[in-house]
Amino acid sequence: MTRPTPLSGFPEWLPAQRMVEQQLLDRLRTTFELHGFAPLETRAVEPLDQLLRKGDTSKEVYVLRRLQADAADSSDSGLGLHFDLTVPFARYVLENAGRLQFPFRRYQIQKAWRGERPQEGRYREFLQADIDVVDRAATPESSLPTHYEVELPLVVADALRGLPLPPIRMHVNNRKLSQGFYQGLGLPDPMEAIRIVDRFDRLGPAGVAEQLVVAGATEAQAKAALALADIRTPDVSFADAVAALGVADPLLEEGVAELSAVVEAAAEHAPGLLVADLRIARGLDYYTGTVYETTLLGHESIGSICSGGRYDNLASTGTDRFPGTGLSIGVSRLLGRLFGIGALGASRSVPTCVLVALSTEDARPAAMRVAASLRGRGIPTEVSPSAAKYGRQIRYAERRGIPYVWFPGRDPGDPDEVKDIRSGDQVVADLATWTPPEEDRLPSIVGG
Amino acid sequence: MTRPTPLSGFPEWLPAQRMVEQQLLDRLRTTFELHGFAPLETRAVEPLDQLLRKGDTSKEVYVLRRLQADAADSSDSGLGLHFDLTVPFARYVLENAGRLQFPFRRYQIQKAWRGERPQEGRYREFLQADIDVVDRAATPESSLPTHYEVELPLVVADALRGLPLPPIRMHVNNRKLSQGFYQGLGLPDPMEAIRIVDRFDRLGPAGVAEQLVVAGATEAQAKAALALADIRTPDVSFADAVAALGVADPLLEEGVAELSAVVEAAAEHAPGLLVADLRIARGLDYYTGTVYETTLLGHESIGSICSGGRYDNLASTGTDRFPGTGLSIGVSRLLGRLFGIGALGASRSVPTCVLVALSTEDARPAAMRVAASLRGRGIPTEVSPSAAKYGRQIRYAERRGIPYVWFPGRDPGDPDEVKDIRSGDQVVADLATWTPPEEDRLPSIVGG
Repeated sequence: MTRPTPLSGFPEWLPAQRMVEQQLLDRLRTTFELHGFAPLETRAVEPLDQLLRKGDTSKEVYVLRRLQADAADSSDSGLGLHFDLTVPFARYVLENAGRLQFPFRRYQIQKAWRGERPQEGRYREFLQADIDVVDRAATPESSLPTHYEVELPLVVADALRGLPLPPIRMHVNNRKLSQGFYQGLGLPDPMEAIRIVDRFDRLGPAGVAEQLVVAGATEAQAKAALALADIRTPDVSFADAVAALGVADPLLEEGVAELSAVVEAAAEHAPGLLVADLRIARGLDYYTGTVYETTLLGHESIGSICSGGRYDNLASTGTDRFPGTGLSIGVSRLLGRLFGIGALGASRSVPTCVLVALSTEDARPAAMRVAASLRGRGIPTEVSPSAAKYGRQIRYAERRGIPYVWFPGRDPGDPDEVKDIRSGDQVVADLATWTPPEEDRLPSIVGG
Repeated sequence: MTRPTPLSGFPEWLPAQRMVEQQLLDRLRTTFELHGFAPLETRAVEPLDQLLRKGDTSKEVYVLRRLQADAADSSDSGLGLHFDLTVPFARYVLENAGRLQFPFRRYQIQKAWRGERPQEGRYREFLQADIDVVDRAATPESSLPTHYEVELPLVVADALRGLPLPPIRMHVNNRKLSQGFYQGLGLPDPMEAIRIVDRFDRLGPAGVAEQLVVAGATEAQAKAALALADIRTPDVSFADAVAALGVADPLLEEGVAELSAVVEAAAEHAPGLLVADLRIARGLDYYTGTVYETTLLGHESIGSICSGGRYDNLASTGTDRFPGTGLSIGVSRLLGRLFGIGALGASRSVPTCVLVALSTEDARPAAMRVAASLRGRGIPTEVSPSAAKYGRQIRYAERRGIPYVWFPGRDPGDPDEVKDIRSGDQVVADLATWTPPEEDRLPSIVGG
């Protein structure tokens, strides 16, 4: 067999990098649970018609086929891998509505797949960490309270706090604000205007103005739309800037109030996290309120590492609607970048803290008892693979970054000793009580 | 949109069940790391020729196709979803051999997919938890020491200990023992005999004897093979029973010695865990030493919940071989059964321990500060979704099994109070110091 080569777009980490990823996921999960989000995992596949039901084929769905497929059993034909975690979640909520409690707070950390052309920040297989709150709205008037749009960014900020990551900034807008403004301005198709402004980074201001005019705007309207897209403030002063543009519309006012609430709460609970950025639009049609994108400062080229928004009509049956608000962290995008530039690693390549040395192969059962005793006190321990010369056993530890080697006493009555292989210090140690410094017990994440 | 229905063979759990699954996975992962196994995750897809390279199509591989596939980019054509974690691991080791330290101890907890007919204990999407130790053997003589075959079942026993699961029993045999016995007996094709004995449960003793005769055995040889398959002992006395059959072969002796070492170590470190069961064969050709299957006592019908063995030739390049030993826990099979009969659940359906009540919507910012303070001390907390009547807010908690409702003082100087909604007891509480009993802080697994 020849040595295999990597598949473009399907990243795989080394064990030390996987340890970093796990610690990041642990932090996300613990924080989500501290905020009362329940865990969920959905199957990897969805019926193709569900994946494509918005007519959106740009997600480049991977379709499945059984190699041994037969006509007699077509139960798994027409399936594709999910391209995000929102579509499966909406389907799960519909399917299990009778067994869930609403409002339903859930988090979901899973892989997703898209057959797009691999490039920086875009993978064909990638890990997402999502939080959503979904309610069951039994009447057309009832809906999900807007305070969840205030809460979700605070949960994400809380989750990423204290990790050795570059700082993030969340850019927030509100669909009602944009749509209301374009309505009040008299644009013929406010939703089309949102889609055009969403391409601001690619088109530039002149391109956006041109496209708006193509879509039926006057030069003056296009100019006003650009003026709105230029507003970016770290506080609620965006409201004054909007007012200064002289457009009036009830939906606009609602949007300004909702965005102000988000910005104000963030200023109190997570100062510096968030800016009101009226250029943010998000491409997807289903957003109806707050929309979020997140920049990793200094790494803007990879795109948003946490996006989402409020959606009122993603899932519904004949009788019930399930409005929700969600945010999705792009874990692979974030880590792929930081691993790629060597900005993130682990303090060692194995979980092991102590290697128990062997004087002879016959000493293995006794060494296994030593290891079991240390593990019983939460110290990751393995026994040496062989009774090679001590120098070679120490090198085994060294190559993996295992900080301690334990030498059991050779004869009954001989004391055990433990060596810190970084300093070379070797001391007599009592198996029942010896404890490594807490920072050595488990591998830790180190910034680059 | 109509309410969707489940897909046969693709199980999904409710949030409370997912919490149980996560606690089980946490336990596995923590134990694996305490034993020095490093984490690994591989991509979900492998080149089809890798998946089928043993000519084994019985695994019913799912093949992928991009909906938007074009001739210009065929980089992801010919891919299939992996059907286990061993084949991807072997590929990963070959691909990354230069960046790994050998012997390499890794664990891997991931989904796998097989397009088989769904039935009890068999899913099309399922979660596996694997541990393997693989070495790089640079010369034909060098190999992985057999002590890893002793160690691995002890790690699994350690991982499953203390969980509210039915007891398990691991059935262990050794390929060298079987193959050596059939050789010594003079059977024309010892490997074919192993494959026949592997079907013992389906064929029964008469059927096995018949098949052996078809494969060239004499009646007397078939009888001896059946006698071997009947040997099952909780201790090393199997060796005497084998000796009594009067077959001599060097490979047989090697197998008896290796199996004895496994049984002896288990008797010391995990009494009652393991039986020597000379009927165990495992269907896969690549096993070359110890083989394992595991019964969940009282649930034998679902099949083995932890299987594996020693493999010497699964991965190799022109110059190097990578012999290994591995065990794989069938997490979905185990949980599917126990959830199905209601034998396993969680103490509540959400992580939340405390719900902070709202007297008015204006009190939300203060309630958010209360929640942040409790979370800061590791207590999962959420704020009430609305300032409904207290009775309704308490019912919100009750329906989810949230044990405590916190009532912030209404006016400055008023004390906060906390209610245990199970007993109805409500007491004055100090936000800076109040702590729930440890068993209430997080949801726990409860046996049925």
